[in-house]
Amino acid sequence: MAGSIFGDILKVSTWGESHGAALGAVIDGCPAGLDISEEYVQSFLDRRRPGQSEFTTKRSEADAVSILSGVFEGKTLGTPISMLVHNTSQLSKDYSDLENVYRPGHADYGFDVKFGIRDHRGGGRSSGRETIGRVMAGAVAEKLLSELGVKVLAYVRRIGDIEIDYNNFDEKEIGRNSLYMPDAVAAATAEGYLKKLIEEKNSSGAEVECIVSGLKAGIGEPVFDKLDARIAQGVMSIGAVKAVEIGDGTLVSSSIGSENNDVFIIKDGKVAKETNHSGGILGGMSDGSDIIVRAAIKPTPSIYRPQRTVNRSGEETEIEIKGRHDPIIAPRAVVVVESMIAFSIADLLLKGNLSKFSDVAKVYNEK
Amino acid sequence: MAGSIFGDILKVSTWGESHGAALGAVIDGCPAGLDISEEYVQSFLDRRRPGQSEFTTKRSEADAVSILSGVFEGKTLGTPISMLVHNTSQLSKDYSDLENVYRPGHADYGFDVKFGIRDHRGGGRSSGRETIGRVMAGAVAEKLLSELGVKVLAYVRRIGDIEIDYNNFDEKEIGRNSLYMPDAVAAATAEGYLKKLIEEKNSSGAEVECIVSGLKAGIGEPVFDKLDARIAQGVMSIGAVKAVEIGDGTLVSSSIGSENNDVFIIKDGKVAKETNHSGGILGGMSDGSDIIVRAAIKPTPSIYRPQRTVNRSGEETEIEIKGRHDPIIAPRAVVVVESMIAFSIADLLLKGNLSKFSDVAKVYNEK
Amino acid sequence: MAGSIFGDILKVSTWGESHGAALGAVIDGCPAGLDISEEYVQSFLDRRRPGQSEFTTKRSEADAVSILSGVFEGKTLGTPISMLVHNTSQLSKDYSDLENVYRPGHADYGFDVKFGIRDHRGGGRSSGRETIGRVMAGAVAEKLLSELGVKVLAYVRRIGDIEIDYNNFDEKEIGRNSLYMPDAVAAATAEGYLKKLIEEKNSSGAEVECIVSGLKAGIGEPVFDKLDARIAQGVMSIGAVKAVEIGDGTLVSSSIGSENNDVFIIKDGKVAKETNHSGGILGGMSDGSDIIVRAAIKPTPSIYRPQRTVNRSGEETEIEIKGRHDPIIAPRAVVVVESMIAFSIADLLLKGNLSKFSDVAKVYNEK
Amino acid sequence: MAGSIFGDILKVSTWGESHGAALGAVIDGCPAGLDISEEYVQSFLDRRRPGQSEFTTKRSEADAVSILSGVFEGKTLGTPISMLVHNTSQLSKDYSDLENVYRPGHADYGFDVKFGIRDHRGGGRSSGRETIGRVMAGAVAEKLLSELGVKVLAYVRRIGDIEIDYNNFDEKEIGRNSLYMPDAVAAATAEGYLKKLIEEKNSSGAEVECIVSGLKAGIGEPVFDKLDARIAQGVMSIGAVKAVEIGDGTLVSSSIGSENNDVFIIKDGKVAKETNHSGGILGGMSDGSDIIVRAAIKPTPSIYRPQRTVNRSGEETEIEIKGRHDPIIAPRAVVVVESMIAFSIADLLLKGNLSKFSDVAKVYNEK
Repeated sequence: MAGSIFGDILKVSTWGESHGAALGAVIDGCPAGLDISEEYVQSFLDRRRPGQSEFTTKRSEADAVSILSGVFEGKTLGTPISMLVHNTSQLSKDYSDLENVYRPGHADYGFDVKFGIRDHRGGGRSSGRETIGRVMAGAVAEKLLSELGVKVLAYVRRIGDIEIDYNNFDEKEIGRNSLYMPDAVAAATAEGYLKKLIEEKNSSGAEVECIVSGLKAGIGEPVFDKLDARIAQGVMSIGAVKAVEIGDGTLVSSSIGSENNDVFIIKDGKVAKETNHSGGILGGMSDGSDIIVRAAIKPTPSIYRPQRTVNRSGEETEIEIKGRHDPIIAPRAVVVVESMIAFSIADLLLKGNLSKFSDVAKVYNEK
Repeated sequence: MAGSIFGDILKVSTWGESHGAALGAVIDGCPAGLDISEEYVQSFLDRRRPGQSEFTTKRSEADAVSILSGVFEGKTLGTPISMLVHNTSQLSKDYSDLENVYRPGHADYGFDVKFGIRDHRGGGRSSGRETIGRVMAGAVAEKLLSELGVKVLAYVRRIGDIEIDYNNFDEKEIGRNSLYMPDAVAAATAEGYLKKLIEEKNSSGAEVECIVSGLKAGIGEPVFDKLDARIAQGVMSIGAVKAVEIGDGTLVSSSIGSENNDVFIIKDGKVAKETNHSGGILGGMSDGSDIIVRAAIKPTPSIYRPQRTVNRSGEETEIEIKGRHDPIIAPRAVVVVESMIAFSIADLLLKGNLSKFSDVAKVYNEK
Repeated sequence: MAGSIFGDILKVSTWGESHGAALGAVIDGCPAGLDISEEYVQSFLDRRRPGQSEFTTKRSEADAVSILSGVFEGKTLGTPISMLVHNTSQLSKDYSDLENVYRPGHADYGFDVKFGIRDHRGGGRSSGRETIGRVMAGAVAEKLLSELGVKVLAYVRRIGDIEIDYNNFDEKEIGRNSLYMPDAVAAATAEGYLKKLIEEKNSSGAEVECIVSGLKAGIGEPVFDKLDARIAQGVMSIGAVKAVEIGDGTLVSSSIGSENNDVFIIKDGKVAKETNHSGGILGGMSDGSDIIVRAAIKPTPSIYRPQRTVNRSGEETEIEIKGRHDPIIAPRAVVVVESMIAFSIADLLLKGNLSKFSDVAKVYNEK
Repeated sequence: MAGSIFGDILKVSTWGESHGAALGAVIDGCPAGLDISEEYVQSFLDRRRPGQSEFTTKRSEADAVSILSGVFEGKTLGTPISMLVHNTSQLSKDYSDLENVYRPGHADYGFDVKFGIRDHRGGGRSSGRETIGRVMAGAVAEKLLSELGVKVLAYVRRIGDIEIDYNNFDEKEIGRNSLYMPDAVAAATAEGYLKKLIEEKNSSGAEVECIVSGLKAGIGEPVFDKLDARIAQGVMSIGAVKAVEIGDGTLVSSSIGSENNDVFIIKDGKVAKETNHSGGILGGMSDGSDIIVRAAIKPTPSIYRPQRTVNRSGEETEIEIKGRHDPIIAPRAVVVVESMIAFSIADLLLKGNLSKFSDVAKVYNEK
């Protein structure tokens, strides 16, 4: 499994199993002189644990971060930043019956085939807890971006068929409701829908949207490391994501050129666009408009119903997954989607500083 | 622009501007002993030029490939495979009026901002001709996959609102109609739709679908180089793609767990799935079912209508793009989408051979 | 400082400052099913602390390793292996006077210029303690190699002008003397030499040699990732190393072809070489003979004498470095050199399994 | 052979066999706006063919470079720069008798074991002609460096036991004598030595030295991508190189701290060093002094004497290598060593611009 490192200049190496000793991340390539504290990173990790609602697991995951290197007197040193969270309250006994059975919709079967060995406790490396390292990385990336005037904001846009109404959009509402929706009305409706699903021992899919504002044009490295391509890799790599859309996304396939093209205009003396069907990305580079990304998140595969499946011996059997599962993944995924997008952009923003020789010379010559 | 290399073990480095001397690719890391010929690669490149229909440009792009290294007596040597296509019929005069104006929906503005210099002739590096290198790489990857029993098949699934009927699905039909649709009825309807758009000086979006069959389970490297994540990067990096979906894709957001979960069964003594909502990928690894990927392709941004835009001097102006443009990108993109998916899978398949120490020992010890 | 990740398939990401909370490493891409325990890794770390002699610092560095992920019930899972050592006995007060002065022969000046910020305590990231992560990685790599019959053995070959006599070569002696020399006589002489240097408040350079036996031919990836090239990067990246030699090394420059060429012979039915001037590497690939590598290690730059230097304000000044320094670096570096060589080889050995398509097919088809 | 790509930001992908259709390189990540012409690159390639002397092969290798992409109206575009040289005068008939025999000192055996297939004509990928791609890359890197005031100069320092006298050092002399030595007296002596070796059907080793002046302090990315580590990889990856030394190199092993440490001083208001034992690199970063690198080059393994060896069938046999071989490799290697060092430095210099957040902000905010 040689795939736990992400990024090209700004690189993160994440590690950890659900029920191992700890989970964490090492971030290499972060420039020196950024303010980073444990409190700051903790505020991101806390967003992975959306409160004490009935829609998120009741496990008391303290998930207290420790920064072990790379930060000195509150500033990044330019050296690798190592962070971890100890696994304190994971109870292995809950999972002993999953050792030899493959849960539908989960990675169990793939892990067994691939490695011939598997930490079956709580999903091991394929647990949702794996995202802790992603969020640590995202916190650092968002700090870098925010110092440059770039804001990254994610939220739940749709649950089942309940979509937010942009007329009701209120950024502050996101943190207020347990579903991380920016529309209180839609959130209330969605809560009702989820309660019904809980009763039915079922779960719901959802859509997470992310808006990046304030990013200048020209970020992204054609042709394979385009801004949208790296965002797509980052977001699709999150467990349960099955689709990634930029701007109008899948709708472009039924659009026509005269409507899909965004007209360039001059606004306040600067190049701007009249519309933003492109979702802020043209030719794989930021175009100065808001970056708009959506991720489709599948329903939690662990449901309380008995499900047919097979076991390691190649026999058909039935499974009833115990333990605690959320009826919806999306609220916890919001900060993860945001993190992967922030990290992808920060990495490419750094590289973008090397596009013009005149920029290279400017910095080097002043040293 | 440090982004023209793709892949981790099997790597491709593509190069070339639309109106430069040539375009090509260098493939590093291809195992020795595969049969590769110019005729074979040419058959892939020819699929980029779908015939002499009214829906694709009439430019006589011979695009004859030369293999310059890495193949000896018809077999790959294990050394880098360099291939190129000379630009023979590109006429620079067509593009002189685009030097200082930014075409809506194109990368012109981004390139200028990023590099301060731009080859304005025909889009330069952001031209559709850039995909020549991708297809060269795809041809090599598909050869490797086909020798291992893996088949990769792409086609146009939808144009505007005209979608194929899977009851009419006929693989042989794909090559027969100019739109690369596997359903003759849908193709005929879509042709009518496109003719109308041509009259209206407009263009259409579309959806390309790709099915990968015969791939064993366990391919993909969690957590960032998951099979779906690398496919997403590869496909989203193609110009004009605005969404990538795996399996049920965006529909999972309105699905529920009991429906979205695919039941594992035993079929012919092997683990299989009763349904394939996952699109053949669970936990970022192939699950043994068909891989299903869809890409949404935006309408051709170059249309014959006058469009408002801005120029390099920061003034609003109008542009009327001359030259030859297709009213739809998708037919040409089919082989490109297929290539990026094949390459992503081949790369991860190679890495998958190193997942178990027992596999590593088996090969090494027999040397 | 985007340079703390090494390796291509088998990757290690190291982190940690001398006086931070901890130091560690994350190893990604290690195949599943290898036996790894904390005791085993500890035995490598203990070799970094060569006993209680007067030639190595008296700091009580417990350096007890914890494995936090990637190992389950004693076996590698195929997931990232995270390990760390807490910094327990580092006393920051010793270093307060070094905050604004650049120690000659050290990285202080470079760090300040590069980052504008520096953890001055004990060298920070440029401390010898940085090698802890390297040795953790080396332990895993040597386990993989030893399971395949490859043995990696390093020792001190020369101290000042005192060189071992190969007639006295005794592998067991290496662990017996405090200087890690395989020749008891040379070790005794060298001890005398070092005692004199200690009296003179001085330090000595040395040469570390490493022999890799049992490696099959064909390992190494021309042209840039040749076996010798990757070993050279790995070994030269160790602090204090100023030269890397393969086989006859610098002596080849005064040799002639008829002497330098190793004659191929058949021995026990296999291809072998009559001599080994090549040091086991031809054309950047292992040739089946022992790999021979030598590293020249500079004298410890921290000496007890007053030295002239400059400070951060750009003034000339004098420095007298307090604290505890070894009069020689090499004994501690032995296991580090061995680790970097083992890791480089293991990484390339894994990749070597993908050189032939027939090998690729053999593993894939049996899945 | 997944090893033909070098560099991290500035990347080169080289390709080509000795007797294939062509050889070349693709350079990705070069900033836009640099002046590059075919004439300029040709001047580097011409240095690979040192004149018409008796010490270098008489093959008429025109080696005329074509730039196929990435340069527009004399300026780099920021897109991949593809360059090639056609193989015009390679005569395959000369090599037919080498198909089944392993030349001593060559890569033939390794290639056969590794790949099971080999282009035996003239060494294929392991031919000295492989360095053409390296020199193309070096030319671009040196252009970038020279625009920033950094000069890279390589020459032959020693042939057999004949070493240059630094008192006679004359940079202009390098291009004047056929051996690329900066000391006319030493060159004359060395010519006599080589004539004698030619008569004896033998060959000589040599040492190439490279001085980099004008590089500011702080370039290099600890801990694995240190400046010396990347230079070591780059230089050791050149065929025939068996040792790489920085500054005092192997001599440090017999030195003592008080002598090896370079005293920091203030000179012209800036930090400087009184001596340069470090060879301009401390802690893996440039220290502002001249970078000094030496490479030991083995004697040409192809000699006209009959040599014992083995064949593919596993039998001992004798070989007499016909064709044309130089009695010494070093003169041709001078520009190759220079190229690898220039490329390594340019790559790290670019990355060095991202070390401080304040530098990152400065460039980004002015966009």
